[in-house]
Amino acid sequence: MVQLDRLDHIAIPVEDVAAAVEWYCRTFRCTVKYQDQTWALLAFANTSLALVIPSQHPAHIGFVSPDAEKFGALKTHRDGTRSCYVNDPAGNAVEILAAD
Amino acid sequence: MVQLDRLDHIAIPVEDVAAAVEWYCRTFRCTVKYQDQTWALLAFANTSLALVIPSQHPAHIGFVSPDAEKFGALKTHRDGTRSCYVNDPAGNAVEILAAD
Repeated sequence: MVQLDRLDHIAIPVEDVAAAVEWYCRTFRCTVKYQDQTWALLAFANTSLALVIPSQHPAHIGFVSPDAEKFGALKTHRDGTRSCYVNDPAGNAVEILAAD
Repeated sequence: MVQLDRLDHIAIPVEDVAAAVEWYCRTFRCTVKYQDQTWALLAFANTSLALVIPSQHPAHIGFVSPDAEKFGALKTHRDGTRSCYVNDPAGNAVEILAAD
């Protein structure tokens, strides 16, 4: 059985972060890990959902890969994660996070 | 500890399903569960990624909820899953799958 890579999070565009957080928390069983006026992070059982104002944070999907370094210079974020961004062939933004 | 709901899959838009499948399988450790010319389904460790031609299949995110029936009449799909579609406040399409 081959080990598969993991979806760390998806970040989808919203216009009003507070309204989106309210809707997702009313609709699903999830918890708010972070929230400000430009983005929020919700925890689900198996991954996280980021709600982002597109002008402030790009919508994207983020996977963890042991080979993240192969795809670009990794930037260290405030939460300690390291990642780079690439585009898939259709232009979707994909974040590749190091496995550390 | 509250049980949280689970992200079943994300479906993102692509122009060329075969090119997208090739890119994701070259970039990440994932396996192809289904593929035709209009969409493909890739298995990752914790969820699935659907690559869809938007004119054939809408881009969306799909969560499993024990309360799926509350959000609309559930349609049974060919694979036996039952779900309905709603929009979040920003207009993102959200599929709510029954937990059976």
